[in-house]
Amino acid sequence: MIGSTRRRVKLVLAYDGTDYHGWQIQANGPSIQSALADAIEKTTGHRAIPIGSGRTDSGVHAMAQVAHFDTDSRLPVNTLLQALNHYLSAGIVVHSAEDVPPTFHARKDALWKLYRYVLQDGPVRNVFLSRYSWRVRGLLDLDAMRQAAVAVVGTHDFRCFETDWPNRRSSVRTVRRCEVSRLGEFLSIDVESDGFLYNMVRAIAGTLCDVGRGKRNAAEMRRIIEMGDRSLAGPTAPAQGLFLVRVEYPLQTSDGRACMV
Amino acid sequence: MIGSTRRRVKLVLAYDGTDYHGWQIQANGPSIQSALADAIEKTTGHRAIPIGSGRTDSGVHAMAQVAHFDTDSRLPVNTLLQALNHYLSAGIVVHSAEDVPPTFHARKDALWKLYRYVLQDGPVRNVFLSRYSWRVRGLLDLDAMRQAAVAVVGTHDFRCFETDWPNRRSSVRTVRRCEVSRLGEFLSIDVESDGFLYNMVRAIAGTLCDVGRGKRNAAEMRRIIEMGDRSLAGPTAPAQGLFLVRVEYPLQTSDGRACMV
Repeated sequence: MIGSTRRRVKLVLAYDGTDYHGWQIQANGPSIQSALADAIEKTTGHRAIPIGSGRTDSGVHAMAQVAHFDTDSRLPVNTLLQALNHYLSAGIVVHSAEDVPPTFHARKDALWKLYRYVLQDGPVRNVFLSRYSWRVRGLLDLDAMRQAAVAVVGTHDFRCFETDWPNRRSSVRTVRRCEVSRLGEFLSIDVESDGFLYNMVRAIAGTLCDVGRGKRNAAEMRRIIEMGDRSLAGPTAPAQGLFLVRVEYPLQTSDGRACMV
Repeated sequence: MIGSTRRRVKLVLAYDGTDYHGWQIQANGPSIQSALADAIEKTTGHRAIPIGSGRTDSGVHAMAQVAHFDTDSRLPVNTLLQALNHYLSAGIVVHSAEDVPPTFHARKDALWKLYRYVLQDGPVRNVFLSRYSWRVRGLLDLDAMRQAAVAVVGTHDFRCFETDWPNRRSSVRTVRRCEVSRLGEFLSIDVESDGFLYNMVRAIAGTLCDVGRGKRNAAEMRRIIEMGDRSLAGPTAPAQGLFLVRVEYPLQTSDGRACMV
């Protein structure tokens, strides 16, 4: 690569997914990926499609999505960051930009992803956070939800929480964290895994919500996973409560060796 | 009033002002007052225009606006509350409904109102709170803002912060609280007064923001108020950072005596 001016840039970005048709470029409406590609083109003078750590669906938010793109631009990363934020709409913001080895890949190198699902169970809806949570009726039982969440942790075939099964590969994933916590009238369900099936977190959230309402219990949660039948699990919770919170990568050496997978 | 079925109901409501043309019924677009009147009509079967504690402008939010309306409905207040929230859109919610003496008046009886203006001065915009704050560039000097805010407290002619002067009455108001505080990258300016002139909090916020940026200081703040010239003060801060937080009324006796003013 000596003498080449081509470089790879890693971005960490946040977005309010409400007005977007998800991460992936779509024919039928604005996407985060296309908005970012437009901003990259205005900034560098050349079109480059950013590669994300994974798709987020229509209406899903991100606190820290990770993406990379290649460019011949010699702009320092801080200038790139400011220019991208200048061109991006109010719903998307780049938090950091850094040069990475050309071997870095935002999707292939991702080790763990943390998603958070936010529920609200207060007596009346919260008008300021209705874009960012799913309001459910009645008081949710936090302890019951915590007990049931334990069943999700581990390496399992998660086809019971998969909208499109059978998929082309395996439905086995490792969840290393599934935790429910409460802050006032808001509950958050944090799910960290080495990979997610289609609508997996939203199906887990819908099922845990059933548990919180007393419709199911921890034993049934274990059984749902064992049986591997989507129809036994709860509803797919709506998109507006879901946030991609963090994507974890291997530590990198300066020559990118640790990025090889 | 013995034998009459007419009653007066007091409501406390929150709203996200983003999509509304302010509190007051308008010919050119949806208002909070008209949305609430529609919900009252659907709930009680009769149209009644609610009277608010005061107007909020287009785009301004409320955590606890107070309003009253009269009705012949015999629905218990809890049923009224639930029905109103059923008919109201996601951006408006009634937090409480209570029967009050027919002498209670949401506007005339209001003693103190507390407004909060929210600023964000982080290095990049916050995509989730951009609807609810004004993002300013550069780090604001909290101590300088606090010193200047002291000058606002007291009984003054506030025409320097009034968009439409001369008005028909006096521009003298009593501010009993003007406090600036910081929570991470967000600053809030709390202003509590017995009455507010048109755009008064937004002009105070714009001027305090100038102080935070080092363009003005506390001595100039005092001089601006003394001179009574709007052109000396700072800009009118945008609507989306402003919240009506609380309206305070006299304690009521059961027959409404303390409501007489």
